Amino acid sequence: MTRQPDRCRPGSVGGAEPDRNGPGSTGPGGPAAGPDRLARAVLSWLAEPGDPQMTALLRTYSPGAIVTALADGTWPPGDARGPAIPGLKAALQRWTARLGGMPTQRTLDGWARAGIRLLCPGDPGWPSQLAVLGDSSPWALWVRGSADLRFACLRSVSIVGTRAATGYGGHVCAELAAALAERGWAVVSGGAFGIDGWAHRGALSAEGITVAVLPSGLDDPYPRGHGELFQAIAAHGVLVSERPPGRAPTRPGFLVRNRLIAALSRGTVVVEAALRSGALNTARHARDLNRPLMAVPGPVTSAASAGCHLAIREWGAECVTSAADVLSQLSFGPDETACGAGGRGPVLPRDELDPVSRGVLEAVPARTGWGPARIAVSAGVDFDTVMRCLGQLAAGGYVERCERGWRLRFPG
Amino acid sequence: MTRQPDRCRPGSVGGAEPDRNGPGSTGPGGPAAGPDRLARAVLSWLAEPGDPQMTALLRTYSPGAIVTALADGTWPPGDARGPAIPGLKAALQRWTARLGGMPTQRTLDGWARAGIRLLCPGDPGWPSQLAVLGDSSPWALWVRGSADLRFACLRSVSIVGTRAATGYGGHVCAELAAALAERGWAVVSGGAFGIDGWAHRGALSAEGITVAVLPSGLDDPYPRGHGELFQAIAAHGVLVSERPPGRAPTRPGFLVRNRLIAALSRGTVVVEAALRSGALNTARHARDLNRPLMAVPGPVTSAASAGCHLAIREWGAECVTSAADVLSQLSFGPDETACGAGGRGPVLPRDELDPVSRGVLEAVPARTGWGPARIAVSAGVDFDTVMRCLGQLAAGGYVERCERGWRLRFPG
Repeated sequence: MTRQPDRCRPGSVGGAEPDRNGPGSTGPGGPAAGPDRLARAVLSWLAEPGDPQMTALLRTYSPGAIVTALADGTWPPGDARGPAIPGLKAALQRWTARLGGMPTQRTLDGWARAGIRLLCPGDPGWPSQLAVLGDSSPWALWVRGSADLRFACLRSVSIVGTRAATGYGGHVCAELAAALAERGWAVVSGGAFGIDGWAHRGALSAEGITVAVLPSGLDDPYPRGHGELFQAIAAHGVLVSERPPGRAPTRPGFLVRNRLIAALSRGTVVVEAALRSGALNTARHARDLNRPLMAVPGPVTSAASAGCHLAIREWGAECVTSAADVLSQLSFGPDETACGAGGRGPVLPRDELDPVSRGVLEAVPARTGWGPARIAVSAGVDFDTVMRCLGQLAAGGYVERCERGWRLRFPG
Repeated sequence: MTRQPDRCRPGSVGGAEPDRNGPGSTGPGGPAAGPDRLARAVLSWLAEPGDPQMTALLRTYSPGAIVTALADGTWPPGDARGPAIPGLKAALQRWTARLGGMPTQRTLDGWARAGIRLLCPGDPGWPSQLAVLGDSSPWALWVRGSADLRFACLRSVSIVGTRAATGYGGHVCAELAAALAERGWAVVSGGAFGIDGWAHRGALSAEGITVAVLPSGLDDPYPRGHGELFQAIAAHGVLVSERPPGRAPTRPGFLVRNRLIAALSRGTVVVEAALRSGALNTARHARDLNRPLMAVPGPVTSAASAGCHLAIREWGAECVTSAADVLSQLSFGPDETACGAGGRGPVLPRDELDPVSRGVLEAVPARTGWGPARIAVSAGVDFDTVMRCLGQLAAGGYVERCERGWRLRFPG
């Protein structure tokens, strides 16, 4: 196979062989290899996030096999006839039409120099809690910013709401986000005007980490009116998108994006939402993913709070009025006090870990267990130290033993 | 036994025989007879509402036996040694100290001329839903006003809240009460300043029936600043108290009164309540009595709504924002639409009944069943008419068949 540097064909990594580990997998043990990473970048360029035909194909083929067959015009990959997928023909036409501008390794290198990095399943920064999405987990993410997405999201709360926030809603939202940030929790939101913006600003005001999950490519974050806010988020937190640079948001893309907001965080709080607000879509995702759903009440005379009251009344959202209320839903429930970290995840703020433990934690893999010796080498500490740290991290709810060694522990 | 008209001794009705039917009973079939009524009036004069020793005594003795023995100085009633009741000696001293001013039949007649009537268990106007209180059901009630307490409470909602209502709370409360009144529901509250007052006013503004359960005797309703409001309530609804005329409210009396507010109505709505508000005491009674408990949310920045949010979060109160929300909790739940009146009580507003059916309904006894012939005589209609009306009333959820005939049907 010859490389074609300017019209990328990411090679036949995985070839036509079925990828039995699903879209979020990179095979046993490690991060995605270079060609697979490029293939995933190309997929995110060709297909819209959550594209049902691409999702279905990835049950049978690896990203590399799909991209190679599309780029070479040798569809379907391999010798087989290919799976019967409704709408596949039209989808192939859509994807083929985009082949011309698809990113190459050179493109990726350019974006990386601009601070926009590609994250693939299995990468150290990949937020493994996205596994809850199953088939609809993103095949790649684009990130920009100083924070580690995985660690930020380990202790994070999504705060979402209407673009048409009232003074009351903005005030309550910023206070809540700041109070959560002060307690070491990251605030995840969608970067939109209104409640989303107040959530990010509140977290930043308390020098906390905030994660903006955007519906657009990160080279031109949407909405542009939040340009300065996005600069601040990149400096102190992280911007995330399923869409590659160069892609503007689409209407369905907003809804697909909302599932990411719900899946990345430990729980979702709706601060203000009218009855037809997109924030209620995020709320439904949180409920469907079995993540705690919370809503802040407001005046019953305010249409901007009607969606919150609906969520409390009809969807089982908890009525929360403070950061303490929110945290009691996330970690320190009455059934957990007796058994320490027996419940839903880490019980120590990460910034209360000592630097050595933090280093060890960074070396622990997300899914496949590693033995302590391998973790010790990776973290650059000796064996005794790694054993001590792993014990502490396990007690804190950060890591757990599995068949093959130690791995990160995730809520649920 | 000689009558002493000016120092009442209500006779030995029931004598020293145990009243096996409990404090809310008058034996089989009918309203309390004259001497028993007077004895109950005297009890309400001698003992504070909910007095635990009096409650305990009434498990063994009839009201008449207790009053006779106290007035004659022949304690305990009858030949027995009397039950061992902690604190009884001090209670006897308290009651004996009040014997001098206790009401006589002449007193009762004077109060009746002033519009203050005595209601006893078994009276046609006795609100039989108080049976839910068991032992702690009042031994008598004082009422003043044009409305029939029992029928008003059959379709009623309690609306309670803080005296320190905000503009928001007052507005929401009055709107809610008016909307419920427009739909034929009576509004029960405690006559206090703040939310209670707005609840009564809202119902009156919609020409609805409202019930004020007061902590004071009805000759001097508390608080005096609501004098004009109480006049309006008496004209279009009813004032109720467990305390006889001449008795000022006591601090524990407020709490004992709250159980009545919860027990009289089909459900309780808290509109605004600070965390230590007495309205939360009423809310707890509603919860403990298994009556629907609801709360209206408000700004989380308002201390006056903190109790509502607490009730929603901790006590299972439903978050309600409108009269429709309230009614969906009380009668027309999704599980009831299929089976008509199969659920919690009347499904037709009483004012949609024809006058003849209303007359028949008034003749149906609360507990012990009556045969249709007896009901026909009492209502002054012929047998065919009474059978037709009873069928309609049963379909509407107002009455039910029992072993001995027909009786009123109550929620639960």
